[in-house]
Order: sequence, then C-alpha cells, then structure tokens
Amino acid sequence: MQQNQLLMIPGPTYVPPRILSAMSAPMINHRGPEFQAMYREVQEGLRTVFGAQGDLVIYPSAGTGGLEAAVANFFSPGDRVLAVTVGVFGDRFATIAERFGLQVERLTEEWGRAADPDRIARRLAEDRTREIKGILLTHNETSTGVANPLREIARVREGHPALLLVDAVSSLGALELKAQEWGLDVVAVGSQKALMIPPGLAILALSPRAWQAAEEARLPRFYWDVLAYRKNFEKQSTPYTPAVPQWYALREALRMVAEEGLPAVYERHALLGEMTRSGVQALGLSLLAEAGRRSDTVTAVRVPPGAAVGRLRQVLREDYGVVVAGGQGKLAEEVFRIGHLGCISPMDILSTLAALELALSSLGHPVHLGDGVAAAQKVLAGRKAR
Amino acid sequence: MQQNQLLMIPGPTYVPPRILSAMSAPMINHRGPEFQAMYREVQEGLRTVFGAQGDLVIYPSAGTGGLEAAVANFFSPGDRVLAVTVGVFGDRFATIAERFGLQVERLTEEWGRAADPDRIARRLAEDRTREIKGILLTHNETSTGVANPLREIARVREGHPALLLVDAVSSLGALELKAQEWGLDVVAVGSQKALMIPPGLAILALSPRAWQAAEEARLPRFYWDVLAYRKNFEKQSTPYTPAVPQWYALREALRMVAEEGLPAVYERHALLGEMTRSGVQALGLSLLAEAGRRSDTVTAVRVPPGAAVGRLRQVLREDYGVVVAGGQGKLAEEVFRIGHLGCISPMDILSTLAALELALSSLGHPVHLGDGVAAAQKVLAGRKAR
Repeated sequence: MQQNQLLMIPGPTYVPPRILSAMSAPMINHRGPEFQAMYREVQEGLRTVFGAQGDLVIYPSAGTGGLEAAVANFFSPGDRVLAVTVGVFGDRFATIAERFGLQVERLTEEWGRAADPDRIARRLAEDRTREIKGILLTHNETSTGVANPLREIARVREGHPALLLVDAVSSLGALELKAQEWGLDVVAVGSQKALMIPPGLAILALSPRAWQAAEEARLPRFYWDVLAYRKNFEKQSTPYTPAVPQWYALREALRMVAEEGLPAVYERHALLGEMTRSGVQALGLSLLAEAGRRSDTVTAVRVPPGAAVGRLRQVLREDYGVVVAGGQGKLAEEVFRIGHLGCISPMDILSTLAALELALSSLGHPVHLGDGVAAAQKVLAGRKAR
Repeated sequence: MQQNQLLMIPGPTYVPPRILSAMSAPMINHRGPEFQAMYREVQEGLRTVFGAQGDLVIYPSAGTGGLEAAVANFFSPGDRVLAVTVGVFGDRFATIAERFGLQVERLTEEWGRAADPDRIARRLAEDRTREIKGILLTHNETSTGVANPLREIARVREGHPALLLVDAVSSLGALELKAQEWGLDVVAVGSQKALMIPPGLAILALSPRAWQAAEEARLPRFYWDVLAYRKNFEKQSTPYTPAVPQWYALREALRMVAEEGLPAVYERHALLGEMTRSGVQALGLSLLAEAGRRSDTVTAVRVPPGAAVGRLRQVLREDYGVVVAGGQGKLAEEVFRIGHLGCISPMDILSTLAALELALSSLGHPVHLGDGVAAAQKVLAGRKAR
C-alpha cells in the first residue's frame, strides 16, 4: 500500500510544503542586495524567537557544529567547565569540551532524570576561587525526553561569573526560552527541529559577556570564529558562503511562527506533549522521563517486556507509514522515541497513537485498540473546552 | 523591466531546475533505509568524479569548513606545512593552519601567477630531514582566475612523505582531477561550484595515507573528525544530521554529470573558458592570470582605466540581469570576475559578453558592440566544426 510517511522523530522534522517551496527559489549572489534583505528579515525574526539582542551567528552546519562553536569560541586551553549532563547530548557537549583541552567536570544525573538546580547552586557556591569558567547545559535532552529547568538553573547561576552555554537544539521554537531576560550567554540551535526547516544550519545567540569572552578566548578556531561573523554583521553578510536554501526556508519558517504567534506555538507543543504522554500511558506503557520534567518535544517510551525496539519501529514504518526513533546510547534497546515538535498537529498525534496500538497488537502485545487515542482525544477536547 | 538573472559568479552557481526540484522531496529519517540508499548512490557517484576510492566524508558546511577539516584531521601541534599560495584562498588555507598552531611556511607567487612545480620540487629536495608534514595547495584560485598545475605538483611531491592536501572547491567537476591516480592525499570540495548544487556541503576524499595520518593526528577536533565519519561508513550513515536537501541535490547532480559524461563536462568547461577569454580580450580588456595557467572556471578581468568595479557590476546587474563578482582582497577595485562553471552553456557566455559590451559602452568606455560576442562565437563555431 502506497502511503504518506508521518515523520515523528525528534528531528529532522516534517518540513511543511510552504517551506519546501520557498527553498526552490533560484540561487542568488550571497554578497548581493537580495541576500542582504533576507539577512535583515531573518535576524529580526530570530531575535524574537530567541529573545535575544543584536545579530546572531548562522553557520552552514549540523546542530553539533553549534555545540563545537559554543566551546571553541569562549574558552582557553585548560579552562574548567561544568558540564551538566542527563543523556547523550549532554555527554556530547562535554566530550567536545574535553577534545578541545578543557578541564571538564561532569555533573550527571541518572538517565530519565533532569538536572537539579540545587545541586548546581551548591557546586557554584563551593567554587569560591571562581575557577569554573562555563556551564554547559542541554535545555531539552532528546535522548531521554527530559526538559531541564533552564530558567531555574539560569537563576542559580546569577552571581557566579561562569558563562552559561545552552544547547537548545531540540527546544528552541517549541519550549519557552528568553536568552536575554534569563541571562543565557550562548544559545546554540540547529535548524531541523522546531524551526521546521531541513538540516544544514546551526545558529548561535550571544550575550554581551559572551562576545567579550570570545575576544579573549585562545582555543584554536577559524570556521567557527564568531568574530569573523561579527565583522560581517554590518554588511548583512557572512564570512563564508551561507547555505542559501536553508536561509530561504528559515525566512519562511520565521514568517509562519510570527503568524501563529510564539505563545500559541508554545501552547501547541504543550498540548502535543500532553496528548502523547496520556496516549502511551493509557496503553500501559511507561515513560522514561521523571514526572514534572517531561519534554513537550519528544517522548521516550519504554518498550513493553519482550518487545524489540527495532521490530516495533519496522512495523510502524512499513505497515502504517509512521516513523519513530529508537533509543540512543545505552537506551538503544530499551526505549523508542516519538518526536512531536515543529509542524505537528494534534491529529498527527492521534494517527501515531492509532498506529502504535495496531503495531503493538500485531506484535502480540495486549492492548485495547482505541485506548491510547481516546486518552489523547480527551486531552485535546479538554484543551479546546477551555 | 522584469528579467531573469544570469548568475555568472564563481559560486554559488546557477542551480538547474531539475536539481531544485529534487530538493523539494519530503524530509526523511536520516538513519533510515531511504537515506542509506541515497548514501550508496551518492558515494558511488562521488568516487567517479573525484577519481577516489572508498567512502568520502560529507559535512554539512561551507567549503571553508572542508579546508578546516583538511587541516584539523591530519596534523599535530607544531607540525610544519608548506602552504603554496597564489591568492585569497591559498592564504585562507594557510591562515587556518596557523590558527591551529602549525608551523606554516608560505610559498607565494605574485597574484595572477600560478604555483611553480620546480620551486616546490626544490623546496622539498632541501627538506632532507623530512620536516614538512603537509603541502597545502589550491587547485583553482578563484580570486585570481588561475589554475595551478596540480598534476605536475603532485608528481614533484613523489618521494617526499608530506601529505598533499588539495583545495579543489572551485575545480572539482570542471577541471580534470584524479585523486587516486595522481596521488592526492586529501581533496576538499564545496557543493556550490561545479557540482551545481546550493551551498551547504563540504566533501573530503582521503587516501589510505591520509586515513593513517588521521589516526595519529593530535590537533583538537570533534565536528570535523573524519574517524567519526568512518565509524558510520558501514551503516551508510553520518555521525551528525546530514543536510538532507543538499544530499538530494547532490544525488541529482551526480546523475546529470553521469549523463553528460565527465570528459564532456571537462570539455565544456574548457570551451566556456576559452570563449570568455577570447571575448573579453577582443574588447581590449586584459586578464589577470598569466597565459597558460588561466582557469576554465573563472576569469578575472582587469577593469579598464577610469572604470569602477562596483559601478560596472551594478549596471550589469540592474540593466541586464547579469551578476558577476568583484575582486577579492587587494584586487577588490582592480578586477571583476566572471564565473563559468557548473550548469553554464556557451549561450550564457554570449549573453554575458553582450551585456558587458553594453554596460561598458553606457559607462563611456569605448567598445565596439559585438566584438566580444563575435570572438567568442568564433571559438564556439571552431569547436563545433571539429
């Protein structure tokens, strides 16, 4: 049976036709006036979504390049950083810092748990000599479906001079984040998540303190050097050739976000998250993430005893056209993950749950068809009734 | 007057509709079977175009990231490299190496001249203690319109253990290059040039010696680490999210190259180069590049006395819809550059020359309308008569 694919992974996310079609515009001179006009519009839109000031740095890169840029630009060899890690992407951030010769102190939590603001506060209070130069923090941990309490952590950092560097790859544009108001120094983002555009851009928002640190940092860098970007800000240009199709897409995506309104976008993601969680729990499945810290962009679900993640994903994909992600790292065989960020609607969640019920059933796991869908429907109906 | 734009800059180049439309395919799971199939086809096509063996490394990145990867993966702090530079991009390659803490010895030529294989041979012969660990070389210097004699340089390197690292960003797919046969250790390329696809990919081909060097190199790296890519080769995957639209484009571009045939592609570029040079010279303009080393992908033309590069480019663009590039670095006010690589036809060259004649004339420079076009037509007619 020929069918459309429903892409429910935590990125790259479904790219709406409006954005795909914006990407088909002809190539332009990236040093010419057409690009400059696009540059201004994109920067303005990004400032709103990041809650940031000034121009942002936009690299042709995967999201991981944004993390490397967040490390390479702000430190010098031997600097100590505190890496708060609750999963695969927190570990990656820490590993990058280690590769670049920083002294990395890891503050880890069991996978499925969120970072603890009090623990971070205590560690910073102990650091009387102000040795810690930076805090690496994942806003939304895609591997475990946990959203860290970013705002609280930013609050407990106040008074300590360490830079707060935030991996917001899978949160920005879905979970509330206000770079300037919350005092985030560096926010690194990829394009292929809630921004709804294809992979190929990494974006960095910097605070004035971060710009200052970049001037003093001595780690080796060229491609990621934010100062080379700053030199081009006033020309509305970039030091190296920009990924023009993704810029076209980003411009269109930012227009879509403005039309829906950022608060409505956040509310929609909260609804999608709640529907998903209610649905899978109604099927008797359990969630990896601790209550109260569950992400509204991705849900990690434990597979039922005796089920194989790979087989479940295969049936979902081949029989029902629903693509979900497997587990990552040590969770590879324990969880599957449903992404619900970007251009996703409540109806997509209902379809996904319906497919999940059928797939589990066909694999011999006892589920009552319709229970997951009904639970999610109730959430939706309740939300609409408000 | 509404008119189509003729993009005659040395990249990003015109993207043919067939490729634009390939990019509009829906997003897929980059860890799924659809991506794996595309991965295999793309790798096979790239092997042909690079004349390389094994899998290539494909980064979401600008071309400059490919140069950074070529430096960061193969050396250790303090290693000596010989940077052969004849313009802006040679200088950039050298600067990256300096930023990463290598000892960089520059072998420069006056801008407009090509690298001299004999000079390189002499320098290598002097290096009896084999201190030089790498040679950084630009195949085609976009800023001056010079094509370096890559094959001859590769020959004089034989017998010296230094790795030969080639920036082929603006040559690959237009000028002949055979990585394996010629003994090139690393070939770095961008997507937005002769490959006809939008910017956003950097590609690295590695020799077995380069892979060996990567295992021993101690420069800091994470995003660019080729070993992380190698780990994913057998899964037909990439360590970080690939720029999927550019992959779609690359697959389509490689199909187009296969249909035209690589020898025919090279021949077409040779024709475009000769037509352009004959045309501008027939208008009394002079070329920056020395005879015998003029590039078939970009022509740098000295502006006539009294003319301003900016004004000439503006008239070409606004009145005739032809976009050419200005000079770079110290040549900013001295030359303009016509790109003729990728999906460019002889008719595009004739249009460009016709517009150039009109623009020069309207700016008060004495040209005989039609002379440039006629000279290029003769080249074309002669080629067809063969």
